[in-house]
Order: sequence, then structure tokens, then C-alpha cells
Amino acid sequence: MDAAKGLEASGETLRAEVKTFFDSAPPLQNSDEITQKLNQFIQRNSSARRIVCVTSGGTTAPLEQRCVRYVDNFSSGHRGATSTEYFLKAGYAVIFLYRKRSFQPFCRSLPDDPLLECFKPNHESNIQVCEAYSETVKRAIVDHHTAVAGGLLLKLPFNTIFEYLQMLQTIAMSMRCIGPRAMFYLAAAVSDYYVPWKEMVEHKIQSGSSHLLDVKLVQVPKMLSVLRKDWAPLAFCISFKLETDSNILLNKAGAALEKYKMHAVVANELSTRKEQVVVVTSAEKVTVQRDKSLSDNDVENPLIKLLSEKHATYIEDSGR
Amino acid sequence: MDAAKGLEASGETLRAEVKTFFDSAPPLQNSDEITQKLNQFIQRNSSARRIVCVTSGGTTAPLEQRCVRYVDNFSSGHRGATSTEYFLKAGYAVIFLYRKRSFQPFCRSLPDDPLLECFKPNHESNIQVCEAYSETVKRAIVDHHTAVAGGLLLKLPFNTIFEYLQMLQTIAMSMRCIGPRAMFYLAAAVSDYYVPWKEMVEHKIQSGSSHLLDVKLVQVPKMLSVLRKDWAPLAFCISFKLETDSNILLNKAGAALEKYKMHAVVANELSTRKEQVVVVTSAEKVTVQRDKSLSDNDVENPLIKLLSEKHATYIEDSGR
Repeated sequence: MDAAKGLEASGETLRAEVKTFFDSAPPLQNSDEITQKLNQFIQRNSSARRIVCVTSGGTTAPLEQRCVRYVDNFSSGHRGATSTEYFLKAGYAVIFLYRKRSFQPFCRSLPDDPLLECFKPNHESNIQVCEAYSETVKRAIVDHHTAVAGGLLLKLPFNTIFEYLQMLQTIAMSMRCIGPRAMFYLAAAVSDYYVPWKEMVEHKIQSGSSHLLDVKLVQVPKMLSVLRKDWAPLAFCISFKLETDSNILLNKAGAALEKYKMHAVVANELSTRKEQVVVVTSAEKVTVQRDKSLSDNDVENPLIKLLSEKHATYIEDSGR
Repeated sequence: MDAAKGLEASGETLRAEVKTFFDSAPPLQNSDEITQKLNQFIQRNSSARRIVCVTSGGTTAPLEQRCVRYVDNFSSGHRGATSTEYFLKAGYAVIFLYRKRSFQPFCRSLPDDPLLECFKPNHESNIQVCEAYSETVKRAIVDHHTAVAGGLLLKLPFNTIFEYLQMLQTIAMSMRCIGPRAMFYLAAAVSDYYVPWKEMVEHKIQSGSSHLLDVKLVQVPKMLSVLRKDWAPLAFCISFKLETDSNILLNKAGAALEKYKMHAVVANELSTRKEQVVVVTSAEKVTVQRDKSLSDNDVENPLIKLLSEKHATYIEDSGR
């Protein structure tokens, strides 16, 4: 078999794996409603601005159909929430595909439980914002409401890897009509492994029966490839590589860039990810650092500026 | 070996397993501060009221030391949060040991993201509560604040199985001084299996290397036994049994009662758990149902009444 045929064959294998994944997944709830919301959102924004789909938070892989146990990926959703704010500032409309209960845009400076921690009763048994939080709370509510009510921010929640990939596919299909003016900014921590729905036990795994629990998970099909090739071939695609071991990070990011034909891979190391990231493209590796002298001193500020510029160049080069 | 010796030997094995678990666990953060808060709380309340430790939400079992992936147990924390409200009404002081970001007492009627969903900007760019939520939000903040500021509710958060069990032990030790007037109401969904800290890989498990992920977890030592026998031998102890299969539920609850020498086991089935539960004791099985005619129409209302009565009898019988 020559190389081209080999690639074609592996493309076929992947498509078959993807088909199996989706065929076996439990049907997405409210899928009609989601599609309708998406189409309205894209139609409203497509002529005036670029649209980015930001994915955020970790996906779960259930171990039982009536799910009690699942494998989860650590991700607070801080990166996705923060990036969404800067994308809005940069003039994008944002589809925010997020894990339930992960960080929300405009809310990342608030404590875990803002209602209980930022408010208190006053003398008339009414409630008021605690002074230390008054500005933060007001800004969060006003900015969030402005973006959502203004039709610039569409929020879609998920829990499982099944929901996430079904929704990502739906979003990609809906965004095809805007061609290269679409961006995918895939910051979610997506499960690499899952238990196929049909192989899952229905009831809770019984603990008494064994001293050892042996969970066998299979690899989730490489959906980044499918997104790029089949779902959204014209969109500008950014993926993320998070590692705890800095020695292997840049190599892994470079490999992902090539394997999935991403336009850029953002490489970040767990312990320094809020200070700096490296944007890896086929042409260069650009280190982006947070600028402590600015008031918007997040690493996402220069990161989104850089990606927005690269996206503009990409649109120009696409000749539209 | 006769039966008594057999029991003794299995007790010894369990103690050895427990020691291994705690010796290998990462040290608990802020343990001095937690102990100090606990002692103050118990001292303040011990003469005037009974004290219950309510555990709530699911524990995680990390798969990597620098945790990216973990096995999680589904539990919203609804049962623990609701029960806490009724324990406070019944005159208890409550130590609420809860999973971070799970339901909080007095907040269960609020949407997932109460700050963003219950508030909106008004014309002067100030914020106000949306009318539909004004009473719920006010009650949540006032009632929660009253309980915490009044010194009747102490909240201690956890994430991992290591943190949970270390804190449960600390709480049990601190509560020994009040003897049978202590109650443990163990509603948390505790991992049955975990990866011992020292056997865990340090860095993120690499996904490229294999088509299959085989996770081997070992059983968490049966801490309920240790809590009853060693940590808090005089306290009144309630555990929970949740199953998705109603056919095995009552048998499992009865077995747990006997095995761990609980004073009662609350049996609940996943799909009907907000409607009814069965309280299993050595003497009887009492079905408790929510009373839709009451304004406090949660199943936890009659449940906590029943348990509070049983606890009162237990204290009397203990001769104090």
C-alpha cells in the first residue's frame, strides 16, 4: 500500500469509528431547540461580525448508563470563560459551549458561591451586596447581561463527552454558512477515553463483589480531524495542549498541529498556564505572556489579540 | 480459628488497611485551622443542643497526582443540603461537610447559576433581583446568613476521597466529647474505589500511547466500621444506601446496617429518592414519604423528624 492509500484507509477507519461513536451515543436532549437557537444566533451576527465557538470545561465519561460513577477531566473553565470576554471585546460573537457549573464569562473574579458569599441581609431583612464585592458583582451582572441580551453571547451547557461532541458537530454544521469567518477555539478538556454506551452496565457497579475495580476505557475517536476535514473545512481552528510535564509539551503541541491540521495549537503547562502560553503554528512558535502593567492583565488578552489577527489574515487569504 | 478470633483478625486487617490509606494520603491543607474551627463550634453548641455532622456530595478519586483525571461519583448534594435545613429547624447545630460546588443549604430552589440568572441590571446600571426570584433569593441569603453568623452551621468543603476521610476523622475526634449527643448523617456519595497516592503516576496519563485505558482501582477501606468502632463509638450513626436497582436495595441496606453496626440505614432508589426513602433499623423498616400537603413538602422533613426522635431515645437509653 502506498502512502496516499494508507492515509485514505486511516481516514476511512476514523470515519467508521466516529459513526460508531455517534450511533451508540444516547440521543441529545432538546436538539431541535439547540439547532434553532444556533441558526438564529448565526443569522443575526453573520453579516456584522466574525463568530467564534469557544469550548470550555471538562467532559465526563460515564461508567454506568444510569450514571452514578464517571471519569472526569479537571478543568475549571477559567481559560474558556476569560477568553470569551476578550473575544467579545475584539468584536466577535461567541458561542460558549461549556461544562455545567464551570466558570462563566465575567464571573471569574467572584468567589465559588457568589450568592452566599457576596450578599448579606441588612437591618430591614432585605439583602445587599457586601462592600468588598460591590463593583465586581455589578460588573459581572451588567456585562454578562449586556452580551447575552445583546445577542452576542450564546451559552450552551454540556456534561458528558456524548453531549459535547454531538453539540460540537451541530454547531460546526450550523456555522458552515459563514465559511472562513468562523473560528473554533477548543479550550475544553475533552476525555481521551470513554466507555461505549452499549458496553456500559445499566445499573450501578456493585462494590462488594471485588477488592479491585478494573475499568477498561477505549479511545474517543480523534474528532479534531473530523471537525477540520468534514464538519467545518473552512473554519479557522485552534486547539489546546495541556501537560503537567513541560519537557514533552512543545513536541506534543507540534504533533497535534500536524496530525489534526489545526491552524494553531496553544501549548500550556498546568502550573504556569495563567502566566504564559505558546502559540504553535506551522510557521512559528510565539510565546505569549500576561502583561502585569495592564488593567486587563490576563494572558488571554494578548492571546486573543494574536489569534484574532491571525484569523483576519486567514480570511483575507481565503479570498472572501 | 473460631468465629470471635476471625472477627478480631478481620478487625486487625481493616485497621492495617486504614493506616495504609491515611499514611499514603497527601497531607490535608489547613488542618490546624479546621480543628480550631471545629473545637470552637462544638464548645459553643455542646451544652445547648445536639450536634450533627451532615456529609454531602460526591468524593473524587484522582488518577494522577497532579490531578487532571479523576473518577467521580454523581451526587448533587441535594439530600445533604435539604437535610441540613431540617436539622437546623429541629434544633441541631450542623457541621456540613460538603463537596465543593455541590448544593448549599437554603439554596436548592435556586437555578444553577443564581447570580447570573436571578439578577439583572436596572435603568441606572445598578443591579436588582428579577421579580420571579425575589422571595427565594432573599430567603436563601437571610436564612443561610442567620445560621452561619449565629454559629449554628459550620461549613467544611472537600474534593477528594483523601480530604473527605481525613476531615471526617478530625470531626469525629472533635465530637467525642459530646458522646451520644453527636450524630453522623452520612449522605455523601463516597468513592468505593481509589488509586493509592503512592501508586499514582505523577504526570498526566498519556493518551496517544494506547487504544485502551485500563484503570485499576482498589477498594477504599470500610471507614464506616472504623468511624463506629474507633473514631466515634458513642455517636448515633446513620448511613445511606443508594441503588438504581430497587430489587437489591433493601437487602443491601440491611447488610450495611449489620456489617457496619449503623443505628439506621436510609435506603433510597435513584429515580424515586425525592419522593420516598426507607429507614432500616435492626427493629424495623419504616417507609417515609414526602407530604405534598405541607409547605415544607420535602421527604427530608418527616425523615429528619423520625431520626431526631430516634436519636433522642438513643440518648436517653445511653443514660445521660
